[in-house]
Amino acid sequence: MHRTKVTVVEDALDANNTIARANRADFDRAEVKVVNFMSAPGAGKTTLLEQVVRDLPGVRVGVLEGDVQGSMDADRLASLHVPVTQLNTDPSFGGECHLDANMVRSAIPSLPLEEIDLLVIENVGNLVCPAEFRVGEDHRVMVCSVTEGEDKPLKYPLMFRTCELVLVNKIDLLPHLEFDLEHLLYNIDQVHPDVERMVVSARTGEGIEAWRQWLVDVVQRTPQAVA
Amino acid sequence: MHRTKVTVVEDALDANNTIARANRADFDRAEVKVVNFMSAPGAGKTTLLEQVVRDLPGVRVGVLEGDVQGSMDADRLASLHVPVTQLNTDPSFGGECHLDANMVRSAIPSLPLEEIDLLVIENVGNLVCPAEFRVGEDHRVMVCSVTEGEDKPLKYPLMFRTCELVLVNKIDLLPHLEFDLEHLLYNIDQVHPDVERMVVSARTGEGIEAWRQWLVDVVQRTPQAVA
Repeated sequence: MHRTKVTVVEDALDANNTIARANRADFDRAEVKVVNFMSAPGAGKTTLLEQVVRDLPGVRVGVLEGDVQGSMDADRLASLHVPVTQLNTDPSFGGECHLDANMVRSAIPSLPLEEIDLLVIENVGNLVCPAEFRVGEDHRVMVCSVTEGEDKPLKYPLMFRTCELVLVNKIDLLPHLEFDLEHLLYNIDQVHPDVERMVVSARTGEGIEAWRQWLVDVVQRTPQAVA
Repeated sequence: MHRTKVTVVEDALDANNTIARANRADFDRAEVKVVNFMSAPGAGKTTLLEQVVRDLPGVRVGVLEGDVQGSMDADRLASLHVPVTQLNTDPSFGGECHLDANMVRSAIPSLPLEEIDLLVIENVGNLVCPAEFRVGEDHRVMVCSVTEGEDKPLKYPLMFRTCELVLVNKIDLLPHLEFDLEHLLYNIDQVHPDVERMVVSARTGEGIEAWRQWLVDVVQRTPQAVA
């Protein structure tokens, strides 16, 4: 019984990966690099995008905004005159807690792929399922806010393990928290040794230039270097 | 196609509800009241439990701790000499992002139901799927931290709509945030008008007595009043 369930899950993930590869082929053909951007609810994904999307030297950026309901984040980003496409995961009841490859595939016809070099997919706020479903991205980035506690890498290891960059956000609040930044960084290394990390504050701007440059480099790296 | 998917989801939720009713019958037979306790990762569920479980006048409490991996929260609560049962949702890959009725059913034989009056089920940190799956609870409580932003009720409405009590936590941080508490409370009312809410700080103790009393009242209310 247990084994059956695991097999079903593996089959579903295999099917997802097949569609993710088709998405990736479409993005590659259009020469668009894709970042899957993930975090818990309220960690600051949209604010961290607002800080950089208006000014990415030499890079035309678009955003695919995943939410259970509503278009608040898409509206915030569209006000910055960046092309934004909304993808809601709620066909009925409570909605899906993550984007999967098929949902992203359904949005591809609405994306201005010929007019952008970089697509940032802002995933649904959740530290579990978004990590399990590839959507055709080149890179995975997550945000971890210092208000969430030092233990999150150990409790949600797959998310930390599958990202290439961890943005540790809201560090302007450190003086007001009982929070040990070194302990968080140690825990990150426990599940993903030496993963690139940036300590940032979307509010004060600390670390934002490094985040901006990282996105620019995603586009400007040669394909060989990205692989 | 779309309709088919919705039907499959409804069937799965029907099956879950059937098992949830069986759980509820077991809890009722043991005269144990059950609270399903939910939030985003890092909102402060475990700390809010630590603040009250040691001293609930007239109430013997136990905790069922749901996590993808690890037993850190269970260890924290067990150190307070409260009976704690760990339930991990990770049989393989990334794990389930919520508890469902069947997982809770599998834990019932391990629960000291004859020795407790109140069982608090600490769900996996996630604002989407935990709201969709009843587990046999009498009451639903959620924690919403002020660091998560005012928009969360509008983005995750089912969670706010299905809870009877919303704990607005970390208000000690308000002086250091650009956060409008009235705006959050307004948004909560948009999705769940007049739902009971408590503004609390697990760190300073503000509002904790009201939270403690709410849990005591869960047990001491007559069955008629609870229904």
